[in-house]
Amino acid sequence: MALGYYFGIDVGGTSVKMSLYSEKEDAFIKKWSIKSGKFDDENILIDSIIDSMKQVCAEEGLDFKASKGIGIGIPGPVTDDGTVLNCVNLGWGILKLKEILVKKTGISNIEVGNDANVAALGEMWKGAGKGYKSVMMVTLGTGVGGGLVIDGHIHAGNKGAAGEIGHITVEAGEEDTCGCGCKGCLEQYASATGIVRMARKMYPETYKEDVTAKDIFDAAKEGCEKAENVVEKFASYLGTALSNVANVVSPEVFIIGGGVAAAGQIITEKVSNYYRQYSMYALKDTDIRLAALGNDAGIYGCVKMVIKGENR
Amino acid sequence: MALGYYFGIDVGGTSVKMSLYSEKEDAFIKKWSIKSGKFDDENILIDSIIDSMKQVCAEEGLDFKASKGIGIGIPGPVTDDGTVLNCVNLGWGILKLKEILVKKTGISNIEVGNDANVAALGEMWKGAGKGYKSVMMVTLGTGVGGGLVIDGHIHAGNKGAAGEIGHITVEAGEEDTCGCGCKGCLEQYASATGIVRMARKMYPETYKEDVTAKDIFDAAKEGCEKAENVVEKFASYLGTALSNVANVVSPEVFIIGGGVAAAGQIITEKVSNYYRQYSMYALKDTDIRLAALGNDAGIYGCVKMVIKGENR
Repeated sequence: MALGYYFGIDVGGTSVKMSLYSEKEDAFIKKWSIKSGKFDDENILIDSIIDSMKQVCAEEGLDFKASKGIGIGIPGPVTDDGTVLNCVNLGWGILKLKEILVKKTGISNIEVGNDANVAALGEMWKGAGKGYKSVMMVTLGTGVGGGLVIDGHIHAGNKGAAGEIGHITVEAGEEDTCGCGCKGCLEQYASATGIVRMARKMYPETYKEDVTAKDIFDAAKEGCEKAENVVEKFASYLGTALSNVANVVSPEVFIIGGGVAAAGQIITEKVSNYYRQYSMYALKDTDIRLAALGNDAGIYGCVKMVIKGENR
Repeated sequence: MALGYYFGIDVGGTSVKMSLYSEKEDAFIKKWSIKSGKFDDENILIDSIIDSMKQVCAEEGLDFKASKGIGIGIPGPVTDDGTVLNCVNLGWGILKLKEILVKKTGISNIEVGNDANVAALGEMWKGAGKGYKSVMMVTLGTGVGGGLVIDGHIHAGNKGAAGEIGHITVEAGEEDTCGCGCKGCLEQYASATGIVRMARKMYPETYKEDVTAKDIFDAAKEGCEKAENVVEKFASYLGTALSNVANVVSPEVFIIGGGVAAAGQIITEKVSNYYRQYSMYALKDTDIRLAALGNDAGIYGCVKMVIKGENR
């Protein structure tokens, strides 16, 4: 193996997505998962990740210590120096993860990023953002997450809080409270949960407890007027929010991913309409695309953080 | 002069603010102005700026060609490569200004930036943002401008459109149209013009055509309830907008400048209240400060763009 190999590790709340990437083949030579979760001691999860990397190296006949780098994504805020700040899903407080990993592995080229930022970087490198260097990725799942890449690098921001566009205020008149404690956050209208909440508020007789965001998008595609109205409202909030994001950072492309985005073109078409309506002239033609890498975006981004010295 | 000297040039619509900065003294050794405006040929203004620099060098006994760099701010969108895109105030179309200036002067270290971005950089270097590397500056004047500095560098964004936070949508119910063609932009509530517009809409009997934003802030400070209500509304729109900006880029500090900011602490206090109310926990204590450099922010930022190799 003339060129190096790298590990891309995307840590979630229930499982850790692991990967071994070969620079020569420009591809993953192995992808696997291990169990994640909250443990009494953070070292339990960290050590099991390291052990798993070592074991795969042994299986593949590779020297673990010769690995050229490890990129790791965490579901919580991460600062530029690789410190994790309070990761609720893992039960972690403030943890100098980069420092800990360098010490435990003896490998110096290690970077830690927030999972949404890492996914944005992955999409830029190998997915829907190929060819671009400034990317805003929005993940529409149970909540609304966001990742920001500027000039080819993750922009973590002060306290690792950049890109958290789920908590942009889009509705001053909202009465329900968002998980963050504020009212009128984008997440209350554009997440899977938010779409259902809106639908049930708009049409309480039609939409009962068991309706899903997927049901609503499916019905809208089939021409159901009520579902169409819910989708329009969803799109108007998300389109406005993206136009506000464009006013702040002016990315080259917006990428929409996450479970809700499985609804497909209806999302980008509707959201683009509102985006253009609310945007200044110079920003109107910024592309809004669907994510291309699915759950692999994170591991691609993790590798990208540490490959070719382009990390920071 | 062991260390070098630099030119910082802030081009406005009616005058060009010029400066000669000495690295050794870490100060401007001369500040002066020349006339600006719309001319039939862009070379007229460009050549008069160059001639003026040369003349001052002659007066000061300096060799123009030995200048270590020229930074120039333009009141319009500027891309990372120093291209100006349609500067209405100067009557310019698309102009590769950096390239033109390098050719005309023979000096290679030249950077061009948008005036608001350059002012933000100046405040970071020598003003209210000293010690910080990520700064969002908001300029409240006839309009609302914004400049964004990330990791010590201006972030111009795609089409030079980043930082234009005056056109963030903050009010979905607005009926009047903003200068940009959209409705409900921050500029319609937080600029000098916008504050007067709001006041006259809220209290048409009290506020007539001749009222100014300064009158309203002065009255609010003296306890006039109507004026206080206008200021609260202004602050709620600006506070919400800044919390949305924080969700996108999470700067270390917000700096508020421009004519309206002359009202002083009342602005930062009121805006901070709303900012904290609308912000996620991690973002609540981001500092909101008044600008410190006044009209000199631009020339400081112009010098900062080209000094010490920290430009890009």
